[in-house]
Amino acid sequence: MHAPSNLTLLPPLARQTDSKILFVVLDGLGGVLGAEPTALQRAACPNLDALAAESALGRTIPIADGITAGSGPGHFSLFGYDPVEVDVGRGLLEALGLGVDVTGRDVAIRGNYCTLDAEGRLLDRRAGRMATELAAPLADLLNEAIGRIEDVDVTVHAGLQYRFAAVFRGPGLDGHVADTDPQVEGVPPVPARALVPEASKMARIADAFAAAAREVLGDRDAANGVILRGISGRPSMPTYAEVAKLRPVCIAAYPAYRGVAHLLGMTVRDEIPSTASIADQVTVLEQTWKDEHDFYFLHVKKTDSHGEDGNEQAKAAVIEEFDALLPRIRALEPDVIVITGDHSTPGPMAGHSWHPVPSLLWGPWSEPDAGSVFDEEACHAGRLGARLPATALLRLALANADKLAKFGA
Amino acid sequence: MHAPSNLTLLPPLARQTDSKILFVVLDGLGGVLGAEPTALQRAACPNLDALAAESALGRTIPIADGITAGSGPGHFSLFGYDPVEVDVGRGLLEALGLGVDVTGRDVAIRGNYCTLDAEGRLLDRRAGRMATELAAPLADLLNEAIGRIEDVDVTVHAGLQYRFAAVFRGPGLDGHVADTDPQVEGVPPVPARALVPEASKMARIADAFAAAAREVLGDRDAANGVILRGISGRPSMPTYAEVAKLRPVCIAAYPAYRGVAHLLGMTVRDEIPSTASIADQVTVLEQTWKDEHDFYFLHVKKTDSHGEDGNEQAKAAVIEEFDALLPRIRALEPDVIVITGDHSTPGPMAGHSWHPVPSLLWGPWSEPDAGSVFDEEACHAGRLGARLPATALLRLALANADKLAKFGA
Repeated sequence: MHAPSNLTLLPPLARQTDSKILFVVLDGLGGVLGAEPTALQRAACPNLDALAAESALGRTIPIADGITAGSGPGHFSLFGYDPVEVDVGRGLLEALGLGVDVTGRDVAIRGNYCTLDAEGRLLDRRAGRMATELAAPLADLLNEAIGRIEDVDVTVHAGLQYRFAAVFRGPGLDGHVADTDPQVEGVPPVPARALVPEASKMARIADAFAAAAREVLGDRDAANGVILRGISGRPSMPTYAEVAKLRPVCIAAYPAYRGVAHLLGMTVRDEIPSTASIADQVTVLEQTWKDEHDFYFLHVKKTDSHGEDGNEQAKAAVIEEFDALLPRIRALEPDVIVITGDHSTPGPMAGHSWHPVPSLLWGPWSEPDAGSVFDEEACHAGRLGARLPATALLRLALANADKLAKFGA
Repeated sequence: MHAPSNLTLLPPLARQTDSKILFVVLDGLGGVLGAEPTALQRAACPNLDALAAESALGRTIPIADGITAGSGPGHFSLFGYDPVEVDVGRGLLEALGLGVDVTGRDVAIRGNYCTLDAEGRLLDRRAGRMATELAAPLADLLNEAIGRIEDVDVTVHAGLQYRFAAVFRGPGLDGHVADTDPQVEGVPPVPARALVPEASKMARIADAFAAAAREVLGDRDAANGVILRGISGRPSMPTYAEVAKLRPVCIAAYPAYRGVAHLLGMTVRDEIPSTASIADQVTVLEQTWKDEHDFYFLHVKKTDSHGEDGNEQAKAAVIEEFDALLPRIRALEPDVIVITGDHSTPGPMAGHSWHPVPSLLWGPWSEPDAGSVFDEEACHAGRLGARLPATALLRLALANADKLAKFGA
C-alpha cells in the first residue's frame, strides 16, 4: 500500500467551505532530544501549552526518516506536496522568493557571488558573505552589461547577502543542468553540464553568463565571479486551489516563503517588509481575516535563523514572542489551527536536521492529547504519532475543517 | 512511506491450511476521543475485554490519515485491497453504498437528476440539489416505466438528494464507458462513449436509459433528465482466493457487504434476511463452521447505523449485543480472531469519519498487550500501533494462522 499522493487523492474529495484554517510555520522549530533542553523546552510559552492541552500532538517527518529537508521541500511537504514527487529547483524558489514573475518556460538560477584568484580558482565561494547592500549594485552592473545571450533574455535579481537569482527567458530552455559549484575552494567553478540532451542550450547559456559576469566583475578584489546553483525550470504541479479547493493567503516576511506560496498559486501579502516583526505579521493576519480566504499560512522565520546560529536562547525567545501573540491569533476564532515547522534546526547542530518536527493540530475533532505542554517529548508521545508524514497534516487539517468528502460513496 | 501492495506481495507467499480465521467487522465501530466517552467506551463488554487481554490491539487507518472511508473502500481495505490502488468505480461504490447486491457481471452508474431546458441543454446539473424525499419517488417512476432495455434489466435506486444509482444486469456489459456529464451547464449531456470496444453495448444501453428517463420525467419543470457518472463494472482485481489462497465465506445481513464479498469472489450466505439479528448471524456461522472455509467474514451493521443517527447509547447496545454472543463464537475455536471496523462513525459527528479504527488481533503469536479493555484509548496505546494501515491486518491474521510462507527462501 502506497501512502497515496495528495495530488491524486484530494482533488475529487476537496470541497470549499467557509471554515478557516490557520497554518503556522515556525521555521526550523524542532530541536534534538538529548542531554540539553531544546529551544521549545526552554521557552516559557503558556499560551502554546494551553492550546496543546486542547490539541493533538505529534512529530512530523518532512521527507523520510533520516533525511534533512531544505526550506523549500520542507514547506512543500507541509502544504501536502510530497517533495520527492514534486521536484522544485532551488533556483526557481529563489527567483520566486525575490518576487520575479517566472513563467512556465523560464529557467532560473540561484547564484552566488564568489571570489576567484587570477587563475580563476575559488578563494571564497560566498565572497566573504558580503552584505546585501554591497551586493545589490552588482546585479545592476550585470543587467546593464549582459541583458541578452543569443536569443535569451537574462535578468539578475539581488538576493540576501552574496546571493542572487538569474532568470533566463527564451526559446528551447530546459532546466536540467548541473550546478557549477564544485563545493570546495581552490579549484575553478565547473562548467555547466546538461543532465538531459534537451538542456544543452541552457548549459551553454549558463556558461556564457558566468563568463560574461567574470568579464564585468573581474576587476574587483572580491565578488569578482559567480557560481550557479539550483538551475531549474518551473515544475508542472497543480496549484493549491486545484489540489484542495482552497483560497489560501501567505503572510510571510521572507522572500523564499512567498516564492513557495506564489508557486502554489496562493495570494501573497507582498506589502510585508522583510523587517516585519511577528506582531506586524499578526496585524496583517487580522486585517486579512475577513477576506475570502480559508487557509492562512503564517510564516515565522527567526526560529530557524537562531537555530542555524546555534543560539538556543534566542530561538526560545522567538517562540516566546510568538506565544505572546497567540491570544490575538486565537481571538480571530479560526476553525482549525496547525502549528508546526518545515524541518528541525537544533541549536546544538547549528543547522537543519532530520529530526521529526513538533506539530500541533487544534480542531473540533482532533482527539486532544492528555498533556498540556507543547514540546518534542509531548509531541513524540502524542496522538498524531512520533513520525507522522508531514504531508498528512494538511489532510487532517482539511478533515477537521470539514473540507473533505468521503472517499467512496 | 510506501508499504507494499498485498496484491503483489501475498500471492507467492499464501498457502492453504486448515486453520480458520474469523474476521468480524463491527461497521463504523470507531468513535472520536474527546470530552465524551465513545460508544465502545460506554459499552459494558466483558467478553471483548477478556479477549482484548489475550490480544494485540491497535487503531487502523482505512485509506490515509484524514481521509474518511465510505463503506466500500473501508471493506476493501480490511480485506487487504488498497482502495486507492484497486480503484473501484464510483457507480459500483454508490450502488454498494445504497445496499444494492451487485454481482460481478453488473454495471452500475451513479446518476444525477438534472434540469434540462426545452432544447435539452443543462440548466442545473443537480436539479437544485433537490431534497432526498422529493427525489425518491422518481426512482419508482423510472423503475415502473423502464425495467428492461434490450436484454438488460435496469434497476434504479434512490440516493441522497439528487443522486441515484442504476444497476444494469445482462449479458455482454462492460463498464468502461465515459460519463455523460459535460461538467458545465448550458450544453446538453454528452452521449455515453465506450472507452474500449467491448463497452459499446453498455454505451448504447446507457444512452437509451438516459433517453427513456427524459421521456418519463420530461414534463417536469425541474429534475426532468439524468446525467450518468462513474459508470463501472466489476473492477479488474484478483479474487480473495487468488490473493490469499483463502476459501472465504460472507455472513452479512445487509446487501452492500454481500456486494463487496461477491466482488471478491467470496461464498455469500444469501439466505440471511436483512432483518437477521446478530444472534441469527452467529447461528449461520455455527452452521457453516464445519464447511471447507478458512476465512469467515461476519458483518454487524447496526453499530454504523446508530452512529450515523448520533445515537451513542444504541451503538453501545449493539456492541453489548455482540459481546454477549462472543462466547458462542469462541466456542467454535477459531485459530485467529480479528475484530475491527471498516471506518469510524462517531455518534457526535453523526457520520463516517477519518479517525483510526479500534482493532483487535487474537492469535497464537499476536503479542498480546498488557491491558484488558477494548476501546479507542487501549487500541491507541496497543501493540499494533496508533495508525496501522488497515491493509496490514489481513497479513497479520494470515501470519498468525500460519498461512504465509517466508519471503525469500
